[in-house]
Amino acid sequence: MSGPDYGAAFTLWRESAPEWQHYTHHAFVEGLRTGTLPRANFLDYLRQDYVFLIHFARAWALAAAKADTLAELQAASSTVQALAHHEMPLHIEICAREGIDAACLEQTVEAPANLAYTRYVLEAGYSGDFLDLMAALAPCVLGYGEIGARLSGSGGPYSDWIETYAGAEYQGLCHDVGALIDGALLHRMGPDWASLPRAGQLAKRFATATRLEVGFWQMGLDGT
Amino acid sequence: MSGPDYGAAFTLWRESAPEWQHYTHHAFVEGLRTGTLPRANFLDYLRQDYVFLIHFARAWALAAAKADTLAELQAASSTVQALAHHEMPLHIEICAREGIDAACLEQTVEAPANLAYTRYVLEAGYSGDFLDLMAALAPCVLGYGEIGARLSGSGGPYSDWIETYAGAEYQGLCHDVGALIDGALLHRMGPDWASLPRAGQLAKRFATATRLEVGFWQMGLDGT
Amino acid sequence: MSGPDYGAAFTLWRESAPEWQHYTHHAFVEGLRTGTLPRANFLDYLRQDYVFLIHFARAWALAAAKADTLAELQAASSTVQALAHHEMPLHIEICAREGIDAACLEQTVEAPANLAYTRYVLEAGYSGDFLDLMAALAPCVLGYGEIGARLSGSGGPYSDWIETYAGAEYQGLCHDVGALIDGALLHRMGPDWASLPRAGQLAKRFATATRLEVGFWQMGLDGT
Amino acid sequence: MSGPDYGAAFTLWRESAPEWQHYTHHAFVEGLRTGTLPRANFLDYLRQDYVFLIHFARAWALAAAKADTLAELQAASSTVQALAHHEMPLHIEICAREGIDAACLEQTVEAPANLAYTRYVLEAGYSGDFLDLMAALAPCVLGYGEIGARLSGSGGPYSDWIETYAGAEYQGLCHDVGALIDGALLHRMGPDWASLPRAGQLAKRFATATRLEVGFWQMGLDGT
Repeated sequence: MSGPDYGAAFTLWRESAPEWQHYTHHAFVEGLRTGTLPRANFLDYLRQDYVFLIHFARAWALAAAKADTLAELQAASSTVQALAHHEMPLHIEICAREGIDAACLEQTVEAPANLAYTRYVLEAGYSGDFLDLMAALAPCVLGYGEIGARLSGSGGPYSDWIETYAGAEYQGLCHDVGALIDGALLHRMGPDWASLPRAGQLAKRFATATRLEVGFWQMGLDGT
Repeated sequence: MSGPDYGAAFTLWRESAPEWQHYTHHAFVEGLRTGTLPRANFLDYLRQDYVFLIHFARAWALAAAKADTLAELQAASSTVQALAHHEMPLHIEICAREGIDAACLEQTVEAPANLAYTRYVLEAGYSGDFLDLMAALAPCVLGYGEIGARLSGSGGPYSDWIETYAGAEYQGLCHDVGALIDGALLHRMGPDWASLPRAGQLAKRFATATRLEVGFWQMGLDGT
Repeated sequence: MSGPDYGAAFTLWRESAPEWQHYTHHAFVEGLRTGTLPRANFLDYLRQDYVFLIHFARAWALAAAKADTLAELQAASSTVQALAHHEMPLHIEICAREGIDAACLEQTVEAPANLAYTRYVLEAGYSGDFLDLMAALAPCVLGYGEIGARLSGSGGPYSDWIETYAGAEYQGLCHDVGALIDGALLHRMGPDWASLPRAGQLAKRFATATRLEVGFWQMGLDGT
Repeated sequence: MSGPDYGAAFTLWRESAPEWQHYTHHAFVEGLRTGTLPRANFLDYLRQDYVFLIHFARAWALAAAKADTLAELQAASSTVQALAHHEMPLHIEICAREGIDAACLEQTVEAPANLAYTRYVLEAGYSGDFLDLMAALAPCVLGYGEIGARLSGSGGPYSDWIETYAGAEYQGLCHDVGALIDGALLHRMGPDWASLPRAGQLAKRFATATRLEVGFWQMGLDGT
């Protein structure tokens, strides 16, 4: 299976993650594509995604704290800033349009599958280094890009959601993050990084995070 | 419902955790009590518990790193040492007796419910302070003590497991950990800590960790 | 001695830090005020300050990672963003004007007094929680505000530096950070936070960080 | 200059740290060797060393939290346990014999040079990974071993201190820690780790920590 070109690490990690296909073609994703996903499930997903975004922004902030170069610091900082001041207000607005007000969002009980993925990412970052954090974040950032690109043009009730991730802005972010990861690997481990034991350890991080993303879609499908 | 007296914080947190009863009386626990839990499920649980213990020991090590007094440091250190040099070899030995050798244990794929609880605990510790870590660890340490005490004398195929947690040594540990938590609260927030917003935040940590413990039993029941 | 009104916590912490006066009236500061500080010392200071800013931005990123509310996350994120994308490029530009090019800045050997303060702040944040980080950051953020306000109008060769910190933008930041700290204390410990043991522990963090700020000025005075 | 054989990483790092000779032959060390170090300075040093040991134990606990294998976890745990339950009580006892009681020890104001080194180590560990922590810890653990071995047999008033570090137990620890570091490098980066950029970054950590150890001796010489 071929996928989008978000860089060398992504290509390797994606190929070695047993559940990548399952994640990017999950029944929840197919429901978004065909428009058959029940609205109630989508709304549940949006509420969980609000809590998710908070921890996702925190994880990118941790990446900034763990940056080793000014370029890494600036890239991570811009992502946090976009998430905290743009994505999150936008998410609140989208939810409001769907009848979920801010107070209701705040009362969302974080589902276990949500806790599992976000805490896995943050803990990988705290216990490991910048690379561990990137490997754990990548399935989310880049997987959504791959899904958006594949589903683009499907139309239907979820086309807004789809086209957000298929759009030039998000695809540009995916290329930037892919380049950030490749650069970070090169900076620390040199051009032959893929042959080192560390590469296998990072691929395992990516694969575990992918498994937890499958759980996130499943939570969306089952309802919370 | 009354429970064992492991200190003031445990009593409060336990009362305010909606799923405490569900956790301590889960069908998996009842299966241990009545002996009706299938052996295969117990063996799956033991394998997951091996991976769990590694992260549990790491969490107590983080507590030692975050200690504010020599007494806190010494208590956390002794727990890590007991886990790493006593519990884990013992666990490997028990598994070997059940036909699961060390190589097989090492290949255990960490189940999502296992990842969820352990990473939640570690992240609580990294992002918060010593108290956050204690509140997230407590449902495991003290819940097993409460379960062991309740199930003691049930007999049956799981009586070894039950009596380990019902025994004087583990019950003593529960009292020590309860006292460590109460002392840590007093040291940081004074005698009226229960009236502070922080107390509610810690109770929420305990309640979330309890929900994830329910998920751990459920994983054991469902098989992995 | 009275000082600027940057909020309740600052007022308390400032009063209880034995070296606050020493820090804000250090011979290096007086040299900036009177214009008698040798240019070479100021340039050394600028070079160290470049390295300082990187770690200072990382510390604010850590604050974002450790935020407990969306407001805390947004405030910390904006500070990181301003530091990484505005202050640091500006600093590089100022240094360039003084004949220190970017390559030269990058080769700066971090002085022990610089290492001491920045690592103290970051470690306080990692080992403690959001409040520990704020208490360790405050002497820098708010002390520079107090110094700027006091020195404003002194004129002389260092008036650009002085008026940056005396200016409305920086003074506004000081009021915002002071309010962020007071809000964070209230959110976690309630209105009587000042009477809790934790308040004394945080005041001690602030006092230690103040001592290390004295060391930073002394490094500037001694040269590196 | 040749040194003790504590493994491959130590040999490389030691050779590339500009201040290694300065650290291991500092006037404070020479004063211990010749017996001319004033007693008052030694007592000041012992008091600072008490505070140091607390943070040193916390750093080893962080290493246990960041371990990637059971062997790493067990090794780090044993070191914490030895420090918290053996070295620290022994240190309290030695100080008591010198007329510094426990209450007095507790009131020790941590000197800037002490803060600088311990916080540098802990922050390296938190921001980086297990290897960063090892590179920052190594100058202390292994440097004391090298100093002890060189000074052994000097006699004089400080022979107890010297022979503690020259003795078989401490020298054994140095060999174990050296092997732990070499193993951790191999496990993550493979047999050619020394050729990777990461090796240079770790050598820089070691060199910076060595500079801060020079500061620690200087603090002992200057008094606090």
